[in-house]
Amino acid sequence: MNGPLRVGVIGLGFFGTRHARIYAAHPAAELVAVCDPDPARRDAVRAGTGARALEDLRSLLDMPEVDAVSICLPDRLHEEAAVAAAEAGKSILLEKPLAHTADAAGRIVAAVERYGVRLMVGHILRFDPRYVQTYLAADPERLGQPIHLRARRHGIRATARRLGTASSILFYMGVHDVDALQWIGRSRIARVYAQKREVLGTGNEDALYAIVTFENGAMGCLDYSWAWPDGLMNGFRSSLEIVGTRAAAYLDCADQGFYAIDDAGTTGGDTHLWPEINGRIAGDLADELDHFITACRSGAPFIQHHREAFDAIPVLDALAESARVGQPVEVRR
Amino acid sequence: MNGPLRVGVIGLGFFGTRHARIYAAHPAAELVAVCDPDPARRDAVRAGTGARALEDLRSLLDMPEVDAVSICLPDRLHEEAAVAAAEAGKSILLEKPLAHTADAAGRIVAAVERYGVRLMVGHILRFDPRYVQTYLAADPERLGQPIHLRARRHGIRATARRLGTASSILFYMGVHDVDALQWIGRSRIARVYAQKREVLGTGNEDALYAIVTFENGAMGCLDYSWAWPDGLMNGFRSSLEIVGTRAAAYLDCADQGFYAIDDAGTTGGDTHLWPEINGRIAGDLADELDHFITACRSGAPFIQHHREAFDAIPVLDALAESARVGQPVEVRR
Amino acid sequence: MNGPLRVGVIGLGFFGTRHARIYAAHPAAELVAVCDPDPARRDAVRAGTGARALEDLRSLLDMPEVDAVSICLPDRLHEEAAVAAAEAGKSILLEKPLAHTADAAGRIVAAVERYGVRLMVGHILRFDPRYVQTYLAADPERLGQPIHLRARRHGIRATARRLGTASSILFYMGVHDVDALQWIGRSRIARVYAQKREVLGTGNEDALYAIVTFENGAMGCLDYSWAWPDGLMNGFRSSLEIVGTRAAAYLDCADQGFYAIDDAGTTGGDTHLWPEINGRIAGDLADELDHFITACRSGAPFIQHHREAFDAIPVLDALAESARVGQPVEVRR
Amino acid sequence: MNGPLRVGVIGLGFFGTRHARIYAAHPAAELVAVCDPDPARRDAVRAGTGARALEDLRSLLDMPEVDAVSICLPDRLHEEAAVAAAEAGKSILLEKPLAHTADAAGRIVAAVERYGVRLMVGHILRFDPRYVQTYLAADPERLGQPIHLRARRHGIRATARRLGTASSILFYMGVHDVDALQWIGRSRIARVYAQKREVLGTGNEDALYAIVTFENGAMGCLDYSWAWPDGLMNGFRSSLEIVGTRAAAYLDCADQGFYAIDDAGTTGGDTHLWPEINGRIAGDLADELDHFITACRSGAPFIQHHREAFDAIPVLDALAESARVGQPVEVRR
Repeated sequence: MNGPLRVGVIGLGFFGTRHARIYAAHPAAELVAVCDPDPARRDAVRAGTGARALEDLRSLLDMPEVDAVSICLPDRLHEEAAVAAAEAGKSILLEKPLAHTADAAGRIVAAVERYGVRLMVGHILRFDPRYVQTYLAADPERLGQPIHLRARRHGIRATARRLGTASSILFYMGVHDVDALQWIGRSRIARVYAQKREVLGTGNEDALYAIVTFENGAMGCLDYSWAWPDGLMNGFRSSLEIVGTRAAAYLDCADQGFYAIDDAGTTGGDTHLWPEINGRIAGDLADELDHFITACRSGAPFIQHHREAFDAIPVLDALAESARVGQPVEVRR
Repeated sequence: MNGPLRVGVIGLGFFGTRHARIYAAHPAAELVAVCDPDPARRDAVRAGTGARALEDLRSLLDMPEVDAVSICLPDRLHEEAAVAAAEAGKSILLEKPLAHTADAAGRIVAAVERYGVRLMVGHILRFDPRYVQTYLAADPERLGQPIHLRARRHGIRATARRLGTASSILFYMGVHDVDALQWIGRSRIARVYAQKREVLGTGNEDALYAIVTFENGAMGCLDYSWAWPDGLMNGFRSSLEIVGTRAAAYLDCADQGFYAIDDAGTTGGDTHLWPEINGRIAGDLADELDHFITACRSGAPFIQHHREAFDAIPVLDALAESARVGQPVEVRR
Repeated sequence: MNGPLRVGVIGLGFFGTRHARIYAAHPAAELVAVCDPDPARRDAVRAGTGARALEDLRSLLDMPEVDAVSICLPDRLHEEAAVAAAEAGKSILLEKPLAHTADAAGRIVAAVERYGVRLMVGHILRFDPRYVQTYLAADPERLGQPIHLRARRHGIRATARRLGTASSILFYMGVHDVDALQWIGRSRIARVYAQKREVLGTGNEDALYAIVTFENGAMGCLDYSWAWPDGLMNGFRSSLEIVGTRAAAYLDCADQGFYAIDDAGTTGGDTHLWPEINGRIAGDLADELDHFITACRSGAPFIQHHREAFDAIPVLDALAESARVGQPVEVRR
Repeated sequence: MNGPLRVGVIGLGFFGTRHARIYAAHPAAELVAVCDPDPARRDAVRAGTGARALEDLRSLLDMPEVDAVSICLPDRLHEEAAVAAAEAGKSILLEKPLAHTADAAGRIVAAVERYGVRLMVGHILRFDPRYVQTYLAADPERLGQPIHLRARRHGIRATARRLGTASSILFYMGVHDVDALQWIGRSRIARVYAQKREVLGTGNEDALYAIVTFENGAMGCLDYSWAWPDGLMNGFRSSLEIVGTRAAAYLDCADQGFYAIDDAGTTGGDTHLWPEINGRIAGDLADELDHFITACRSGAPFIQHHREAFDAIPVLDALAESARVGQPVEVRR
C-alpha cells in the first residue's frame, strides 16, 4: 500500500477516543470515519479530528474508502461488529478481549477466516517494554525450563462500578494476563482451578484467584482484583514473574517514576500505557496502533496471529467454570 | 521473678547461635547453657558467650538452674525436645514450626498442657513492624469485612539445597504466612487447594501455590517458592496484602533501604529481621526474644497463645494433602 | 552496676514521652522521675509509668537516686539543662543537637569534662540498620578512597510550622546528616558553601543546599528541606550515598514497606525509627536507649565519644554563615 | 510536504545508529544517506537499512535529495557539521549538546539564523513521560511559586572511561538537567556555584555538585556523577524534584519495572529511553525523532525553539568556571 491506511473507529468510549486521536496524528494513517450512538461523543471526535462521524456501524462499514477498523465496543458487542467488519472486507483491530464467550470468539474467527480479512487483537502488553523484556529474558536458552509463573492485575473498585455488568473481571482484565502468561511461558494453559468473591455489590466480581497448569508442566498463578479502595496509588497494580531452571525474570508496574504531592496526599500517573507527550498520545497504545498500521500497509504478519490471541478465550471460560463449580477444570480447545 | 531469666539454647545452627547471642547480651536474661552434637559449634558459642556447652539436650534439661529453653532444632526433632522440655518443667520458646506434622504438634501441645509449662512459638512476623502495622490497619473498624488476602514468601534455591529433606517449603517457610494470614485476617482457614512443583532436585519442593477459604468467607492466596536463582536481590522476597470492604493495607519486604555496589553488581542486606547494630543483634528476632524473656519473668501472657500458634499446623497438613491429591481439601481441626 | 540504671527524663514533648516509655519498659532501667512545666504532660506520663513527675528540672537533678538523665528539651534550652546535669553528676543522654550554637556546645562539653560525667548525644542514625550497614560497606578496605558523598533529609512544612523559631533546619534536621557524613565518610568537613530559602513564612528556613569539602579531599552535598506539602508519603524522605574508588553504597528511607489505602489515598507509616510493636516502642530509638543504659551500667564507652558528636556543631555554624554571606566558608574547630 | 522527509544521519556511533534505524522504520521518513569515517559502521548501517553510506559529511550535505540531517557526532565536532549543514540548507536535528563551548554554540545559532534553516536540539527528556508529567505538575497554577529544585544524573565509570577526553560530564550529561531545570522551573539559571572531583583517572570529571540560583529566586541543586562502579543496577540513575509554595512533584528513573535474575545477581534494563519492541526502537528517542519528522513536514514549530535550547550552554560554561575558581559565578548570556 502506498498511501495511508484509511481507518474507521467503531465505538468512542475511553479506548475509541484514544484510537481516533492516535490514527488522526499518525503520518501513515487517515482517520476517515468514526461511529457511536452517543451524539456528544461523535461531535467531540469530529471536532478534534475532522473525521466523518456516524451513528451506526453499518454505515461506517459500507464506506468503501475505509480499509481498516478499530472495534472499541463493550465486550458483548464485539461479535456482531467483528463479523460485520469481516463481511465488509475490512482489516480489524479488535480491542481485547476477542469476545465475551468462547463461542462468540469462535464465530468471529470463523468469519475472519471465511472472508479472508486480517485480524489483530489489542493485546497491549505485547507492546509494553516491561512485558517484552520479560518475554525476551524468558527465552528457553536463558531461562531453562519454566517452573512457576505468576501474573496479577489489580484495580480500584470505581472501575468495577463503572463497568457494572457490561464486562467481567476475566474478560476485561483477565485476558491480558492469560495471554501474557501463555506468551511469556511459551506454553498453553491446560487446567485451571479458580475461586472468586463478590461482596462489594458492584455488579462484578471483586476478585478472582486461580492456579493453573501449563501443557509443558509449569505451574501458574493468576491474581485479579478490582476491589481496591479508590485511593490506591496510580489506580492499578500489575506484575508478572517467571522462574525457570536456569534463570528468572519479573516485571512490576507499580512504580511509574512520577509523583505529585499536595497537602492532601501523594498521587502518581501513567508513564507507560498511553501517556500524553506534547499533545500526542505516546506509549504502549500508540506503538500497538503503529504496528497495526504498518503491518496492514506492508502486508507483513502481525506479531500475534489471531489464533494465538484466541487461545486465551477458552482459558477464561474454564476459569469461570472452575470458580462456579469449586473444582479444577480442564481447558477445552 | 526478680533475677534474670536463666536460659538454655538447644541446637546451635543458624537460629540457635543467634538466640544464644541475644540472650547473652540481654540484661534480664542469663545464658546458662547450650547444647549441640557438633563440638565446633559448641566451642564457638562457649567462647563467645561463656555459657556451658553440652552435647546432649537431656543434660541441659536436667539442669535445675535453667528456667527456660529455646528449641532451635530441625523441624523433625522438635517433638522429642519439646516434650522433654515440658516434662522437665521448662518454659519453652520453640522456633517455628511447632512440629513437622499435625500429630506431632498435638503431642507437643498435650505435653505442655499436662506439665503446665509455658510455650511460645517463634512466629517472628508478629514482631515485624511491617506485619504489625498491617495487622493494625486490618482492624475491622478500619478495614470493614475482609474480601481477599494474599501472602508470599520466596527464597533462593541455595536455601532449599542446604535444607534438603530436613525440612519442607510448608513447614520451613509456609507456616509464617499461614499464621500471618489467620492473625491479620482475624479468621481461620477452613478449606485449601494447593499445587506444587519439584523440578530442581533440591530434595525439596520448588514452589507451592494455594487458594484458601477462611471461616468468615474471605478468600486467600499463598505463594511460596524457593526456586529463585541465587542472585536474587536480598535473597528473599515476602509480602502480604488484605483488601476489605472499607479499606486495604499491604506490606512488601523486597526493599531493605540499603544497597552495596561494586563492579560485579548491586546487592542488599537485611535491615529488619536480625540486623547487627554495633556488635549486637537487633530487629525482629531480638524483639521476639525480649518478649519471651519479659513475659516469662512477669508471668504475663505471651502475645500469642500456643493454641493459636497450633492453628497453623492443620492448614499445612491440608495444603500438603491437597497438593498430593489435586483436589480442594477441608482443614481438619 | 548491679541494679537497674535509675533514670530521669527532662522535657516531655514528642521525644521525652518516648524516652520515658522506653525506660519504663526496659528491664535494666528504672524510670524514677520526669519533669516538664506542662502539668497535662506530667500527668500523662505519671499515669502511664508511675514515675515521679516534677515541674522543675532542678528538683529532678537534686534527687540523689537519679543516676542518669535524658534531656529532651527544645534546642535553645539544652545548654542550661546539660550544664546543670553535669554539675549534678548525672550521666547524660542529650537529644540532638548538642546545642543551638557552637559556643553553647563548647560550654556543655567543658562542663561535662570538668565534672567528669558521661555524655552521649542522641544521634539516632548510628542505631539505624540502614545507616550502620552503609557505614560498614564504606569501610576503606571495601570502598577505597571516598570520591563523593551526599545526604538528604526532607520533611513536611507542618513540622517547620510547628517548631517555628524554636529550632532551625540545620540544628533540628541537619545535624543528623552532618554527623552521618563525617562518620560514614571517615573524615571531617573542612569547608562549606550553602544557600537557603525562606518563602513559606513558617518562621524557619524552607530549604538549604550545601556543597562541602572533607579533610581527606572528598566532596559532599547536603540537601535539606521541610517545604514539602503535608501530603508527602510517610511525611519525610532521607537518603545517603557514598561513592569510592573501589565500591559504593547507598541507603534510601523513602520506602517503609507498609501501605494503607482507603478511598482518599495511600499512606504509609514508620517501620524503623520508633515503631510500636505489641504495645512497646521498638526500632532505632529503643536500640539507642538500650545502648545508653547498657554502657552506663557496664562502664563501657559509648559507640560515639562526645567529642566526635561535637564535631558536627562547627559545621552547622559554618553552613549558616555561608548561607548568610553567599561565599564558601572554612569550618573553624 | 507531501512525501516523506528525506534524512541523512551524520555519525554512526551509539546514537547515530539508533537514529538511522528509527528513520528507516518511520512511515513518513526516508533514510537516504548516512556517513561515518569508520567503514565497518557504514557497512553495518547500509546492510540494515539500504541507505547510501558515505565517508564524508560534505558528500552527504551535497546531496540535494537530503532534506534534513541528524548530527550524532562527538561534542567537539558539532560546530563544523552544524554550520556546514546550515549552509547546505538542511533542517537539523542536533544531538545534545548544541556544542562544546558557548562560543561554538553561538556560531551554530548564528549560522542557522543566517541561512534560515530549522534547528532542533536532541533534548530527549522533553519526550520522556516522567519529565513531561513533572513539567505539567509544575504549572504555576498547581505548584505556586517554585522554592527549590534538584536534578541528578549518575552513571557508571565505564561510560566516563569510554568517552575519555572526547566529552565532559557537563556537556555529555549535564546539559540534560540544566535544560530540564530551566524548562520545568519556568526560569533561567542566573548564578552558579560548583565543585568537582577527578580521582579515578578516566580522563573525565568523576562528579560535579552545584548549587544554582534562578532568575525568579528559586534555588537549585545539580548532582552529577559517572563514578559509580559498573555493577550499578540499570547503569544509571536520574531524578528531578521541584517543591513550590502550593504543591510539589518529583520523578525518579531508578526503577525500570523489569528485573532479570540469575545465580550471579539481579540486573535490569531500559524501558523508557530507547527500548526495542518487536524489532523496532520505541520510547523517548523514537518520539523525539517522530516530532522532528512531523514538524519538518508540516512546518509547525518544534516544541523547543533553538534559542531556548541554547540557554543551557552559558550555564554549563559558568558551572565549569565556578568549579575552576572555587567561587560563585554569574551566568553570562
